[in-house]
Amino acid sequence: MALEPFDAVDLIRTKRDGGELSAAQIDWLIDAYTRGYVADEQMSAMTMAIFLNGMGRDEIRDLTLAMVASGTRLDFSTLSKRTTDKHSTGGVGDKITLPLAPLVASFGVAVPQLSGRGLGHTGGTLDKLESIPGWRASLTNDEFMAQLESVGAVVCAAGAGLAPADRKLYALRDITGTVEAIPLIASSIMSKKIAEGTAALVLDVKFGSGAFMQDPERSRELAETMVRLGNDAGVATRALLTNMNVPLGRAIGNANEVRESVEVLAGGGPADVVTLTVALAREMLDLAGVPDADVESALKNGRAMDSWRAMIWAQGGDPDAALPTPKETHVVRAERAGVLVAQHALPFGIAAWRLGAGRARQEDPVMHSAGIELHAKPGDAIAEGQPLFTLGTDDPDRFPRALEALEGAYRIGESGDPIDDGGPLIAGRIA
Amino acid sequence: MALEPFDAVDLIRTKRDGGELSAAQIDWLIDAYTRGYVADEQMSAMTMAIFLNGMGRDEIRDLTLAMVASGTRLDFSTLSKRTTDKHSTGGVGDKITLPLAPLVASFGVAVPQLSGRGLGHTGGTLDKLESIPGWRASLTNDEFMAQLESVGAVVCAAGAGLAPADRKLYALRDITGTVEAIPLIASSIMSKKIAEGTAALVLDVKFGSGAFMQDPERSRELAETMVRLGNDAGVATRALLTNMNVPLGRAIGNANEVRESVEVLAGGGPADVVTLTVALAREMLDLAGVPDADVESALKNGRAMDSWRAMIWAQGGDPDAALPTPKETHVVRAERAGVLVAQHALPFGIAAWRLGAGRARQEDPVMHSAGIELHAKPGDAIAEGQPLFTLGTDDPDRFPRALEALEGAYRIGESGDPIDDGGPLIAGRIA
Repeated sequence: MALEPFDAVDLIRTKRDGGELSAAQIDWLIDAYTRGYVADEQMSAMTMAIFLNGMGRDEIRDLTLAMVASGTRLDFSTLSKRTTDKHSTGGVGDKITLPLAPLVASFGVAVPQLSGRGLGHTGGTLDKLESIPGWRASLTNDEFMAQLESVGAVVCAAGAGLAPADRKLYALRDITGTVEAIPLIASSIMSKKIAEGTAALVLDVKFGSGAFMQDPERSRELAETMVRLGNDAGVATRALLTNMNVPLGRAIGNANEVRESVEVLAGGGPADVVTLTVALAREMLDLAGVPDADVESALKNGRAMDSWRAMIWAQGGDPDAALPTPKETHVVRAERAGVLVAQHALPFGIAAWRLGAGRARQEDPVMHSAGIELHAKPGDAIAEGQPLFTLGTDDPDRFPRALEALEGAYRIGESGDPIDDGGPLIAGRIA
Repeated sequence: MALEPFDAVDLIRTKRDGGELSAAQIDWLIDAYTRGYVADEQMSAMTMAIFLNGMGRDEIRDLTLAMVASGTRLDFSTLSKRTTDKHSTGGVGDKITLPLAPLVASFGVAVPQLSGRGLGHTGGTLDKLESIPGWRASLTNDEFMAQLESVGAVVCAAGAGLAPADRKLYALRDITGTVEAIPLIASSIMSKKIAEGTAALVLDVKFGSGAFMQDPERSRELAETMVRLGNDAGVATRALLTNMNVPLGRAIGNANEVRESVEVLAGGGPADVVTLTVALAREMLDLAGVPDADVESALKNGRAMDSWRAMIWAQGGDPDAALPTPKETHVVRAERAGVLVAQHALPFGIAAWRLGAGRARQEDPVMHSAGIELHAKPGDAIAEGQPLFTLGTDDPDRFPRALEALEGAYRIGESGDPIDDGGPLIAGRIA
């Protein structure tokens, strides 16, 4: 004990009483927590104090760098390509990584996407890709580097060696009601992305009912904090603020989101998915030194699709294999004619989760076939009896609770009624 | 999980966001925490949220009663005597329980003092009494009841069955920087005292540099909260607000505090110890239906001393045995003549602790012989070279760090300088 330069209780008290922690104190705290000298119960009191009393800019930077330093930092300096990556704060129907990574890689840059699995109502990119027969999320470091060099796009599971302090802290915050604090969210996301070693990063920071952070102003604050953290750590970072009041695209689930992504890569797909994919691709390529890439053409002319197929093959998947479909479906039809004026993301996300597309606990499996197909989007004219959406699952006992979540989740109004979609898809840009 | 009526994370969020917890929620939380369903890390986030966002009157009452309900509640209804007890929030040189319990018991009432051991710079009553050869702190329930009936006064260790939730929560607060919150202090103290089963209770709530709570206004708020909690739970409760800017009496330690207590029981002793003992005894006896007891006479005429001797004998101690004395002493003398104008309690408490009188960890032993003798009190005229205080310990290596703690701890001024003692000993009364 005599060798420890600080005392955990003193540091908790400092933050509790509204004080600022020094870089040396934060470095020690995170290191001591990672090696188990500072206990979980001490760290949870600390995170609640941070939640309620906040952190200054320097503290957030020091916390982020301390979490990076808790593990290994990948090094892409031997690659012949520039690296550029994207991170989304998560939303309902958010499959953008699937078309985006191969699209960007098709311009000769490397996209080292280390992704996670879903928890709660927002899906996980790895869960979606695992609907493809044979595809595997785990790669050795050598496989990872080789695929970046050859294909350019890699979407795989982050190794345990990246920011282990964040991994430990996130699990703790999840059970102690301290998830939603900006200093903690920003440092958690950015420590992983900085450790991942990408040279450039575009953040898709969502707001609205289906987002982690509902309020646009708070999501802007989060985005600004993360952009500053990235640039301070030498990662060229930008952010788009995007609207998550309405599900993205027409598919919510896993296999059906892969199917929709392939439509986008084939030059089709829902307009909102295409718009966001293109906007993020432009930012990523611009940061990677390819400022005038014709990304729309790459979606139309098969170039992005070739990149996708190579990416799936490289990780053992068969891009031509049939994807799972649900054993049971339930169609919800319009009770009246009119215009679809509301389609709230959160209840649709919860319904898809209850159908089996998501998990409640980290160790649960997901049902790849389960999910929702939307047959209309806000602003569409609706005929009486027209299918509005179809629920799918292998376990029909799940329909009642999914339908319960969807009560009040959409509304048919009159022609000319305002559309309750929270405004434009891309609401801001922070560079 | 489906059988649990509440979710710990929801309750943490409620308190985190400034909401109020219902009685049912608090009952569940404390019960679930006691049985280990709610984890330590969740409870520590909750206590930090309580620390920073406070608790309403109803919540504090519900928390206290839930902690009482977590264990057994003693029942003195079969005793032929009325019960009355005292609790002190702790201070430097605070040995008042030692003369007080037998003094009050000498009037035919029962004093069921369940005490603790010291931690940090404030001493523990059991540690002091254990300097007496043979004396033991542990009694069976039958021994406890029999001694209350015969002698009247019992000072012993609280059993593990009383308010186990408080025991668990206190250990957690101690390592997570959430000790000093009034709702948590008040519920912790009062849950134990209510579970102890006493019919009446007098609280000695201290303020000043050597007290747990320095600010007089905060200590008044704590006292008012505890008096309300006691009376609401059917325990007739009052409080005195007392000054702990200066050590109480002339002895700080263990064996030397027993020696000073015996002086008081013999009709002598320092004025401040006598004053506080008498004031607390009057309150305790008044609540026990003996309003006009001549407590000063009981100290002078041997009646309280007889009660003390009976109490010590009953627990295996020999009241006539020699008490341990320190192997080594170090006398600090006045560098100049004048008047002692300051003698700060906290540094003297820390110095005695460093000499071996206190412990840093719950499992450490204490050195019964160690401590400090004060040869002058604030206001006393001082001659150059006169002994001001004597440090004693069995381990002379401890002198330098004890002397370090005492730098600036006292001041000799000119005759007529104001005395820096924080005002009168008894600063208020809450009934």
